[in-house]
Amino acid sequence: MSEYLNEGTIILTTEPSVYSYAAAGGKMEGDGPLGSCFDYISQESDFGESTWEKSESRLQQLAFSHALSKGGISEGELSFIFAGDLQNQCTGSAYGIRDTGIPFIGLYGACSTMAESLVLASIFVDNNAAEYCAALTSSHFCSAERQFRFPETYGGQRTPTAQWTVTGSGCAIVGKHNNPPYIKGVTIGKIVDLGIKDANNMGAAMAPAAYETIKSYLKVQKKTVNDFDLILTGDLGSVGSEILYELFRKDGVDISTVHNDCGLMIYDFEKQDVHAGGSGCGCSASVLCGHILERVKKGELKNVLFAATGALMSTTVVQQGESIPGISHAVHISCE
Amino acid sequence: MSEYLNEGTIILTTEPSVYSYAAAGGKMEGDGPLGSCFDYISQESDFGESTWEKSESRLQQLAFSHALSKGGISEGELSFIFAGDLQNQCTGSAYGIRDTGIPFIGLYGACSTMAESLVLASIFVDNNAAEYCAALTSSHFCSAERQFRFPETYGGQRTPTAQWTVTGSGCAIVGKHNNPPYIKGVTIGKIVDLGIKDANNMGAAMAPAAYETIKSYLKVQKKTVNDFDLILTGDLGSVGSEILYELFRKDGVDISTVHNDCGLMIYDFEKQDVHAGGSGCGCSASVLCGHILERVKKGELKNVLFAATGALMSTTVVQQGESIPGISHAVHISCE
Repeated sequence: MSEYLNEGTIILTTEPSVYSYAAAGGKMEGDGPLGSCFDYISQESDFGESTWEKSESRLQQLAFSHALSKGGISEGELSFIFAGDLQNQCTGSAYGIRDTGIPFIGLYGACSTMAESLVLASIFVDNNAAEYCAALTSSHFCSAERQFRFPETYGGQRTPTAQWTVTGSGCAIVGKHNNPPYIKGVTIGKIVDLGIKDANNMGAAMAPAAYETIKSYLKVQKKTVNDFDLILTGDLGSVGSEILYELFRKDGVDISTVHNDCGLMIYDFEKQDVHAGGSGCGCSASVLCGHILERVKKGELKNVLFAATGALMSTTVVQQGESIPGISHAVHISCE
Repeated sequence: MSEYLNEGTIILTTEPSVYSYAAAGGKMEGDGPLGSCFDYISQESDFGESTWEKSESRLQQLAFSHALSKGGISEGELSFIFAGDLQNQCTGSAYGIRDTGIPFIGLYGACSTMAESLVLASIFVDNNAAEYCAALTSSHFCSAERQFRFPETYGGQRTPTAQWTVTGSGCAIVGKHNNPPYIKGVTIGKIVDLGIKDANNMGAAMAPAAYETIKSYLKVQKKTVNDFDLILTGDLGSVGSEILYELFRKDGVDISTVHNDCGLMIYDFEKQDVHAGGSGCGCSASVLCGHILERVKKGELKNVLFAATGALMSTTVVQQGESIPGISHAVHISCE
């Protein structure tokens, strides 16, 4: 049974378990520092498909099927799939799970979708509205770049603040309280827009939303940053992470000692030319489902606040001169 | 407390109430047979804004603010907004509610979004995960046409099976059990794709999904079509509605006696040139929130099964030769 507190924060009193989890990625992700954590790495960007859109759907299918098989759960045991992605009309997800026959809730939270899907899956399980649920998302460098940024063939230069869209997918299967990791609480974020208009500086657009959501969970739950081994943002990258530290510093809080960002973890900044870091729904999804959940399960991390971050613009509205709204949703994951 | 039954169906044991509801629309919707049911009609398509995207956000704000004021509910009393729309990256919703400061769950269910948002809002309230929630969606003829169909300036001819995107928005505020209308149960649909590739025949693409979802709710709840005064699909239009009847006829069921479709109700087929009917998220949203919920509140309709329908393609994947996946979510609304 859930308990709504305030400011978007909900306590999950039955503490649902993440039964299993898996991540799939591309070659560049496999070459990064977390390469060995992925359950599947494709050496080919196309994943054997004829379009980038199908490649992304295939990527999502790979994370989904690995999560099911690792957990010994069949498709038929799933009540619902919560999924979304960055493609227009979220077709990466819709076409990816089209043939499963499993009831589907489509989400759009941009790069916050892994947290958004995990929030909803956990709330459904906590309240007997579902047995097992899958939380699933992805991004693919090629489908995202051609949709959001420079057409590749223009040879446009990437700015220093730009981030690199991760080719990756993560899937978590949530079920009733059993073994760790447990989901103890969530904060559903509000939109925060401080006027950033540079679509090549999404870290700056999203950092204030991450700040508000993390601050809200800590305040409502009467916790401090030191109650967590790790406060993990989605894809603020180097620019956004510095802004997050500065926002907390103004409150007299040093979050830097327990903070890391999926966009800073997934690539090797020395060897891989990713500018300000990784981004995309698949960034936080694959770092969470490939690396972090396993560390919580083993007890290496006791309490993690996973705050994925999203930038809710489209190319159309940015070209019309609009600023970029940010959002962040948080999930408290614990081994205790 | 919710009770998960089977095949995507959930019983809401506390039977949350729809506290208030409102609809906003454009001139053409105001000229239609339900024109007097709208809370706000704009004579100008631009709603006083400089882009079609902003016009749609403004439309959503109008439905939202009218629903709040009709219910005597302040923005600060809302726990969450569940919203989505058809624009790429769902910017109609994100920019529409950006300034509210209310925690936001972004959805993508194409034209099924009104049902999807109402499902989630009801489940949150049923389980104490929220106090009041808003379920909100919209579509705008101009933002949708330029994104999905022919560029207007080409002068392309519309096919007979094509539907007309409604300029409309609906908002429902859900809270704890109080007065009717009540939400008694929901079915979250699975994706159904029978291979339709014609993006100008979305009724045909969505009808099999509506059939599966309605059949599932009836079966799991051990009800027949005659237990409902009205089974209301979202925007199958004339072509899709006939396919729905045929699918039920094969099971020996005549659904036509209790069925209607929002896409058939919103325009005057004699006087308004809408081919196969209305469509868009705002079609089912404004018919439900402007017309149907009021009739349930008054007891004129006792039991309504609202099954909004969505087509989950994008222009990109359709151009790549893909077929169109359909989805439908159902909400059982009752005055009893």
